[in-house]
Amino acid sequence: MRMVDLIAKKRDGGQLTKDEINWMIGEYVAERIPSYQMSALLMAIYFNGMADDEMAALADSMLHSGDVLDLSAIPGIKIDKHSTGGIGDKISLILSPVMGALGVDVPMISGRGLGFTGGTLDKLEAIPGFNVNMSTEDFIKQVQEHHIAIISASGEVAPADRKLYALRDVTATVESIPLIASSIMSKKISSGINALVLDVKTGSGAFMQKRADAEALAKALVAIGTAHNVATKALITDMSQPLGVTIGNSLEVAETIAVLNGRGPKDVRDLTVILASHMLVMAGKTDDIQAAASLAGDVLRDGRAKRAFKQLIADQGGDATVVDNPQKLPQAEYRIHVQATTSGYVQAIDAKALGLVSMQLGGGRKQAGDALDLAVGLVLHKKVGTPVAAGDTLVTVHSSTAEIGQLTADIQHAFTIGADEPEQTPLVLDVIEPVSK
Amino acid sequence: MRMVDLIAKKRDGGQLTKDEINWMIGEYVAERIPSYQMSALLMAIYFNGMADDEMAALADSMLHSGDVLDLSAIPGIKIDKHSTGGIGDKISLILSPVMGALGVDVPMISGRGLGFTGGTLDKLEAIPGFNVNMSTEDFIKQVQEHHIAIISASGEVAPADRKLYALRDVTATVESIPLIASSIMSKKISSGINALVLDVKTGSGAFMQKRADAEALAKALVAIGTAHNVATKALITDMSQPLGVTIGNSLEVAETIAVLNGRGPKDVRDLTVILASHMLVMAGKTDDIQAAASLAGDVLRDGRAKRAFKQLIADQGGDATVVDNPQKLPQAEYRIHVQATTSGYVQAIDAKALGLVSMQLGGGRKQAGDALDLAVGLVLHKKVGTPVAAGDTLVTVHSSTAEIGQLTADIQHAFTIGADEPEQTPLVLDVIEPVSK
Repeated sequence: MRMVDLIAKKRDGGQLTKDEINWMIGEYVAERIPSYQMSALLMAIYFNGMADDEMAALADSMLHSGDVLDLSAIPGIKIDKHSTGGIGDKISLILSPVMGALGVDVPMISGRGLGFTGGTLDKLEAIPGFNVNMSTEDFIKQVQEHHIAIISASGEVAPADRKLYALRDVTATVESIPLIASSIMSKKISSGINALVLDVKTGSGAFMQKRADAEALAKALVAIGTAHNVATKALITDMSQPLGVTIGNSLEVAETIAVLNGRGPKDVRDLTVILASHMLVMAGKTDDIQAAASLAGDVLRDGRAKRAFKQLIADQGGDATVVDNPQKLPQAEYRIHVQATTSGYVQAIDAKALGLVSMQLGGGRKQAGDALDLAVGLVLHKKVGTPVAAGDTLVTVHSSTAEIGQLTADIQHAFTIGADEPEQTPLVLDVIEPVSK
Repeated sequence: MRMVDLIAKKRDGGQLTKDEINWMIGEYVAERIPSYQMSALLMAIYFNGMADDEMAALADSMLHSGDVLDLSAIPGIKIDKHSTGGIGDKISLILSPVMGALGVDVPMISGRGLGFTGGTLDKLEAIPGFNVNMSTEDFIKQVQEHHIAIISASGEVAPADRKLYALRDVTATVESIPLIASSIMSKKISSGINALVLDVKTGSGAFMQKRADAEALAKALVAIGTAHNVATKALITDMSQPLGVTIGNSLEVAETIAVLNGRGPKDVRDLTVILASHMLVMAGKTDDIQAAASLAGDVLRDGRAKRAFKQLIADQGGDATVVDNPQKLPQAEYRIHVQATTSGYVQAIDAKALGLVSMQLGGGRKQAGDALDLAVGLVLHKKVGTPVAAGDTLVTVHSSTAEIGQLTADIQHAFTIGADEPEQTPLVLDVIEPVSK
């Protein structure tokens, strides 16, 4: 086999076979295929795409380049949720205890934030003592005992994907749906789950800004999961404004606690319930989606989900008393109110811009490995559709410095305020299920 | 400037500016842009093409990466001919003395053969003593005295092109018309000429097998030449069968001599006259193309072109007596006749297949640097349209070994023989002139 022939085949619109993909990934990781050939292939894939079989083979090849978790010691359905990333997305923190309270096994392996988006692990670390690093044995034991655990990947997960991603990043081949999909799925499948719900975000604060791209990505993700015998479903959800009213690690934990107390913003509560209802059906708890939604709503209202969250925190070495005393979470020294300069309705909020403000405050990473200030972030007082008068506070900035300079203007510019009341975008835009063969 | 941004721009269908191209080529040659970024860009160019301005800038940038010949010591029009390469194409060897006999300055810098195609320099070296390596001073002096010279490039010609070509070769990005065109023109323009006729071949024995590709390449070449103030014209010519009846270095020199004696195959003679007539008009010898064709025909008939060839050989240290005694050219030890196995008309000849047979005999190079057997090759007894009976000799193989094994069958397979008399393809399919602005 010669790499140049595989490049030509893909360039001319052909499909690579499973053997060809396995050979290519193996040789690339072993550094017997040079990066300049791989980047040419990646660009050809950018233009000509990949068929479902090719994507599945690529994901398979990448996941087997590293450690694959064996969760067979946990019987039955092991389900996870993965979001493609958005601003203010703290759903995993709420969804996990909801599922735990209902006896569904969710062995969750999460990531950290980069750029304008946050990460579940960073948010959890705002809880004093919370430990996301755990041996596979302890991870399995915790799920066996209390159904849920949220940890960082141990071992080497899909090194081929890491190597390919680094190359894509510098060769303008990141934005390829088959490559994005196989990258995501190689990591998720390596975590040993057999069911997965995907939250594919679309809108100004999402990686997939266009609805059509989000749909295509969702279909690709579902196809790859299905090919790997992982029951997979994807929801296309709105990220045209931040989710909830907080952005920033400690602030998002506080919002999580509010929702677990039966309060909190409606969009966060609703999306949690919708995702939970799909997961409950997939886990076999009921076959009626409305009944599943009721179950999820119940455990949020009656405190069972809150108790499961306390148990999760305790299991992972954290201070569970923060759930009843959220003021124990890291608090920023300064609160700075940013006012509206005009009156009208909030017609749009540039979620990505606010994500970048939070990053500038120290709540996010400019590059991997940056240390975070867990206390900082933004609290939104107005969301899309809300009437606002000039001088009203739009956002309270939680900052470690008294002066935030340009960020005030950045926040004001992120809000579009106009005379007309905008239409509300539905939270869930579409549900993508496997295509039956 | 960041290379990843230029890749993304081209990927998204944008046009690179002259500054961007100059920066990129400079940094690439200096090894400050890695090959994996360049190959991604090359693949994006493969898919999205380049505008005329971009191709001209790329050719300019590549030609200035190396030595550029200064031929200003030769006043007036200095014209060359370049062929994109075909089987049995010995036209340069005849055209040069035709032009020399008519007083047109043709400072020709030629190349060597690779793969299934031969090279003008290799053919000339079949003439004992012929020296293609010459200082720029001697090259200019010879053209000043006798109008013509055919040499190998001295100095470093377009190293950026060489580096890029090596990368294209292993990344399946050779077959990109803007890249092919800028590569060809960077080398031709660096030779210091101010007029150029291009012979763009199309058909089974050509690099551009499809007519439409040949047309596109011709237009690209003419656009680049024109942008560099080189008067450029391109002829699209047929390479659906070998040109003339010989393939192989020594054999092609013998055929050259036959044409210079007013004999030889009609296609070789006709194509020489057509190319010569365009060059004569461009050189200002006449403004009537028919009159120009007459001039060229005259010098072939009356021996002036033959004398100019003898002078050329003598000027470059060769044994000019071969022109009157072609048997002094290297002769192969064995002549092997390959017969037709069926009867009918020769409907097609796979020129590339015969080029590969000649290469296998030792007449061509599998890879750059291979030594050649100048004596070997093929003499065709039948061309397209000729009636043939089973048992007739199709080809006489000139070989250094008595046994040629599989090659006999390869030659037979290269001939398509059938009942119907085929239509003849015209020699010149189109003429591409600069688009007036």
